[in-house]
Amino acid sequence: MPRTQPVKSCVGKRNAIYAQSGGVTAVINATACGVIETARRHRGKIGKVLAGRDGIIGVLTEDLIDTSKEAPAAIRALRHTPAGAFGSCRYKLKGLEENRAQYERLIAIFKAHDIGYFFYNGGNDSADTAWKVSQISEQLGYPVLCIGIPKTVDNDLAVTDNCPGFGSVAKYVATSMREAGYDVASMARTSTKVFVLEVMGRHAGWITAACGLAAEQPGDAPHILLFPEITFDPEKFLASADAAVKQHGYCAIAVSEGLRDKDGKFLSESGVRDAFGHAQLGGVAPRLAKLVRDRFGYRCHWAVADYLQRSARHIASKVDVQQAYAVGKAAVDLAIKGRNAVMPVIVRKSNRPYKWTIGVAELKDIANRERMLPRDFITEDGFYITARCRQYLAPLILGEDPPPFKNGLPAYVRLKNVAVPKKLGTTFAI
Amino acid sequence: MPRTQPVKSCVGKRNAIYAQSGGVTAVINATACGVIETARRHRGKIGKVLAGRDGIIGVLTEDLIDTSKEAPAAIRALRHTPAGAFGSCRYKLKGLEENRAQYERLIAIFKAHDIGYFFYNGGNDSADTAWKVSQISEQLGYPVLCIGIPKTVDNDLAVTDNCPGFGSVAKYVATSMREAGYDVASMARTSTKVFVLEVMGRHAGWITAACGLAAEQPGDAPHILLFPEITFDPEKFLASADAAVKQHGYCAIAVSEGLRDKDGKFLSESGVRDAFGHAQLGGVAPRLAKLVRDRFGYRCHWAVADYLQRSARHIASKVDVQQAYAVGKAAVDLAIKGRNAVMPVIVRKSNRPYKWTIGVAELKDIANRERMLPRDFITEDGFYITARCRQYLAPLILGEDPPPFKNGLPAYVRLKNVAVPKKLGTTFAI
Repeated sequence: MPRTQPVKSCVGKRNAIYAQSGGVTAVINATACGVIETARRHRGKIGKVLAGRDGIIGVLTEDLIDTSKEAPAAIRALRHTPAGAFGSCRYKLKGLEENRAQYERLIAIFKAHDIGYFFYNGGNDSADTAWKVSQISEQLGYPVLCIGIPKTVDNDLAVTDNCPGFGSVAKYVATSMREAGYDVASMARTSTKVFVLEVMGRHAGWITAACGLAAEQPGDAPHILLFPEITFDPEKFLASADAAVKQHGYCAIAVSEGLRDKDGKFLSESGVRDAFGHAQLGGVAPRLAKLVRDRFGYRCHWAVADYLQRSARHIASKVDVQQAYAVGKAAVDLAIKGRNAVMPVIVRKSNRPYKWTIGVAELKDIANRERMLPRDFITEDGFYITARCRQYLAPLILGEDPPPFKNGLPAYVRLKNVAVPKKLGTTFAI
Repeated sequence: MPRTQPVKSCVGKRNAIYAQSGGVTAVINATACGVIETARRHRGKIGKVLAGRDGIIGVLTEDLIDTSKEAPAAIRALRHTPAGAFGSCRYKLKGLEENRAQYERLIAIFKAHDIGYFFYNGGNDSADTAWKVSQISEQLGYPVLCIGIPKTVDNDLAVTDNCPGFGSVAKYVATSMREAGYDVASMARTSTKVFVLEVMGRHAGWITAACGLAAEQPGDAPHILLFPEITFDPEKFLASADAAVKQHGYCAIAVSEGLRDKDGKFLSESGVRDAFGHAQLGGVAPRLAKLVRDRFGYRCHWAVADYLQRSARHIASKVDVQQAYAVGKAAVDLAIKGRNAVMPVIVRKSNRPYKWTIGVAELKDIANRERMLPRDFITEDGFYITARCRQYLAPLILGEDPPPFKNGLPAYVRLKNVAVPKKLGTTFAI
């Protein structure tokens, strides 16, 4: 692994900022738990861990949360609580040349709160932001170590073998597809013959691929997977759906929200108008269901999992929870060692038994890159996953780690999120 | 409880038919497990339990399954397997006067296979069918005891306190709403402000009501519930959604698929046309999201759980599983006692601690009746559940009963479903 120079002046006790970025997941709080618990074990090096309220926006506006006000049990409960406990946001820093004021503001905040460590937990946009911040210490003369921490349900980060957040979505969609498949199979003779489940992953088909894990034996649901990487061919699709109905009595389909036609247009946007002539809001699943129904007359049902899939902590993958915690812990360990501009990543050691470890990557190698499903993970006809893909995916959903339940429902924590008193007399427009 | 006369000639060892009917649930197989396991403990009275393949259709077409070919472990595994293991169907018997041939066919099948007991597991339509069958033994001179067994996610059966199948959907939708609520809350500042979850229950709002269990403290999701029992008022709804966004930063909404406007028209059908002018396939959630977005410009997301909710055995309610098993067992116990034209029902003894027992109801009191959400279970403004409703619902989602997992996914059983050799030389057109 390439090494960056330790920033010497970070030695000594300094505070840290942790911020969540982009779409949240079932396990991003497990990462927060890993960061905060590990930092608390290094009190000689790291003073307080402050969190940005709603991510980087809270940092820029000096809206910081003092995590030292949270009891150990509350921090521990983050491990089993979905979504972003401190709030997240979609907000990308511009380049230093384009918006120097943003960076000067960050440095001002860092100085005011004696910040020596900045942990930024997000996807590839966030890796870009983290990388930019990692470069400013020298340019603006303020010593801060910046560590990115991977997170995304889309599993599309470069370098890392997989992304914390993905394994739990994968487990959720595969479980849901298996269950719905049993349902449809048992009713198909007189009722629904075609079922479509729409899942996330606008550009990369990892989540769609994970639906394929539901099938263990030939004929099991799902029968067709529609990836964003493969141009949608309506006639081929219809023929394939009809064949599945004729062969198995029913057809279960998983489709990416980002499925596109030959003109590159999202299926979810094509042609549907409401009574006023406005384009109808999303939903590729209902489009496909309609296609099939209009052609064959089969009764069709469809589901859109939307946020349910990425917040489903109740059916999280244990491997995913462990990895999410581990990258949080590793980020602090790296900071303690004086590393800057890096991200802890997951390295696969073996498939059977599944073994993994934490490695270190340069933020610049991850920033703004997107990893699609490799073509050899998709069968030649474009409608299914290969054995190779299955081998890659299978370990990521292993193990259960249910949250505690109270009154029949998962007991998730809500932190106090006590604000840190502001020290700067200035505001900052977002 | 009123008593029907035991049909004397059923004394002695006879076979039984068990059939599943209507929409399947996460726990209808737990009922099948209760029936078969209990029958196997009464071998002196009940010979084989045969199952109708795809419900009553399999009975009419002499397509019967021999459950005695299944190992005890396979039958046991039904307790944790969702959907209908023998297949179900939507098919309602006509009255004896309208279609005497159907009943003569049933009797022919019963005679050929020495059937003394008929267990019909379904909702109110099925209770009607079961009742009709229970009346034919005398009229057509063939002795058979007919016992209905309750099942429906819609929770709309009369007499019984609640319906097996409902508790698990309730637990699923409340869990999902809680999780999605955490998700939206953590992103609302810069992303989605309004989230809509569409749930089942076309006529009765029980499942929609159950979403309300997700909220424990003021401000928790969901903020608005839209019941099929309450006529949709767009302006009141929009004002309420906007108020929630302004007060809590976001608004989470649960809506019944059966929401109707003031003309009694389903929202999901109103006005949406595709490029060819055809009415667009269902989905009230996207309609509501669009309404809100068009009025206020808020970013909206929506999910349609569809079959995912009723097949989600992985998050089943333990109370529901126990009750589903218990009604199956009780049905056999009633048959052994010579009861006819009855249905075991769930009787609530106390709320805290929750205590229940099995009672007996007359099929004729359940057939074709539908139990809506009482008006005093809904708040005066029509947008929420009352404390009284919460008290009723709360016990039904208690306890977890996860299935075994294998390779990271629920391990559900597929029975061999060995066909019983046909004895009649005749076919029957469905």
